[in-house]
Amino acid sequence: MIKQLAIVGGTHGNEFTGIYLLKKWQKNTALVERSNFTTEMIFANPQAYVQNKRYVEHDLNRCFSQTDLGNNQLNSIEQIRAKEINQQIGPKGQPRIDFVIDMHTTTTNMGPTLLLTSKGKFYNQLAAYVQLHMPNAMISCDEDHKSNEQHHFLSSIAMDSVMIEVGPVPQSVLRHDVFEQTELMTMLILDFIELHNQDAVPQLPKSITAYRYLESIKLPLDAEGNRAGMVHKDIQDQDFMPIKPGQPIFVSFDGEDICYQGDRVVYGSFINEAAYYDNNIALSLLEKVTLSTD
Amino acid sequence: MIKQLAIVGGTHGNEFTGIYLLKKWQKNTALVERSNFTTEMIFANPQAYVQNKRYVEHDLNRCFSQTDLGNNQLNSIEQIRAKEINQQIGPKGQPRIDFVIDMHTTTTNMGPTLLLTSKGKFYNQLAAYVQLHMPNAMISCDEDHKSNEQHHFLSSIAMDSVMIEVGPVPQSVLRHDVFEQTELMTMLILDFIELHNQDAVPQLPKSITAYRYLESIKLPLDAEGNRAGMVHKDIQDQDFMPIKPGQPIFVSFDGEDICYQGDRVVYGSFINEAAYYDNNIALSLLEKVTLSTD
Repeated sequence: MIKQLAIVGGTHGNEFTGIYLLKKWQKNTALVERSNFTTEMIFANPQAYVQNKRYVEHDLNRCFSQTDLGNNQLNSIEQIRAKEINQQIGPKGQPRIDFVIDMHTTTTNMGPTLLLTSKGKFYNQLAAYVQLHMPNAMISCDEDHKSNEQHHFLSSIAMDSVMIEVGPVPQSVLRHDVFEQTELMTMLILDFIELHNQDAVPQLPKSITAYRYLESIKLPLDAEGNRAGMVHKDIQDQDFMPIKPGQPIFVSFDGEDICYQGDRVVYGSFINEAAYYDNNIALSLLEKVTLSTD
Repeated sequence: MIKQLAIVGGTHGNEFTGIYLLKKWQKNTALVERSNFTTEMIFANPQAYVQNKRYVEHDLNRCFSQTDLGNNQLNSIEQIRAKEINQQIGPKGQPRIDFVIDMHTTTTNMGPTLLLTSKGKFYNQLAAYVQLHMPNAMISCDEDHKSNEQHHFLSSIAMDSVMIEVGPVPQSVLRHDVFEQTELMTMLILDFIELHNQDAVPQLPKSITAYRYLESIKLPLDAEGNRAGMVHKDIQDQDFMPIKPGQPIFVSFDGEDICYQGDRVVYGSFINEAAYYDNNIALSLLEKVTLSTD
């Protein structure tokens, strides 16, 4: 039973969609209220928003490991903000809030993506319900760290959570379509939780297709660690499409193709994400999986 | 006769394409050399690039009016850098450099666009030549201020100049397709100037279609000046397509359409450009014009 839920926006200050959706819903809270749980709304990183940046000093969405939350030596703007949010809706380990929905956007062509942070029938049914009412929704799984106190995502404060990632939208931009998709996906998650609380989950497809995170791969770098190439146009915008062994995935600035060295078909996401240039991460690799709703 | 030419990249620090093209060409200068003029390359705002921002204190591409260049009280990072660049390739009014190509990118769906800063047969022929060899190139004109010493663009240092705008690409991202398009357009401009210098401009179409800047329009704002809506999905990505009187161009956050109030068909560009949110500018309006190459 989920009794208390928090919707979070602006975990990254230049992802405007969640921030403006919160403004909208705060004016009309009925939109996010449901009959059998309470909904709170949290604007996670307003200082980064004011500066029109992803973050001021540290990526807020990497500040929520139990160790970091407990370390009073860590006092950057985001490290302090993480402790505040943890007090407000946590504390992690024994949280007041049962479920977090954290709204993000991406510069990549991932469409509306529901990111599952945990395994199990509840999550599989939630994903199936969302996709049933939103056929273009993609389901992505990254459950490795779950029930791991050291997970650093904001959403890991609660025992259960999902992240919404919608793109493509440039940083610091509002797109009408992305705004609508993010709102629709949030509404469907709220609707499902209400039904689940009532033990009234409707009939769902027996299984759905999802994409599970395997690893991230880096841009080509030269001996000094400088970028030596970029994402190849053959995979640009092809999020959730197959990447085959030997297929060009990068191109050097001189125009030479650099091919995928793996030995099986994988799938890409966050392909050429602006926010990941800091670490020269070019894309995530995923495997296709089937989630059962039984 | 154009004898000395400068190619400029990184006027905006988060428009990576021009910056990485300069890196490429600096390693292999033959790519930008031609038989009858010299080519210099200028990385305009490296400090903004290091900070991964459009600019540090002031938009560098608004710092080149004769008044500002002559005002020693103005000493922000960009105001100082503008004076350095003016010394290096100017001075404005009597410049050493005859022609500037300034490479930009946009988050909007403008495709590869050649932006003409001046009127006349030379520019019309240049545009026709580029489009002949690059059929997806769009031609946009913004000549209002030309021969006006108060123009604030970097390119206005030279008596003649063009700007290249290619999109869509998020800020702080390299896209292979945008990189190639920017390189191709630059090569075609260099080729045309070489031919023009030799009085060997080949036969060109008698006229081409272009889009001339009329005015910019703002996002809907509430009484306190806060954004009250966003660009409507009907015009999102529809750069250089007609906008008709009465057509929805914005949508309020509550979902209400806001329609275009003009009384004739116009065309949009820079529709929902990230960099223009600072000033709440939503798009530029253009009129369709015909440029004659005779």
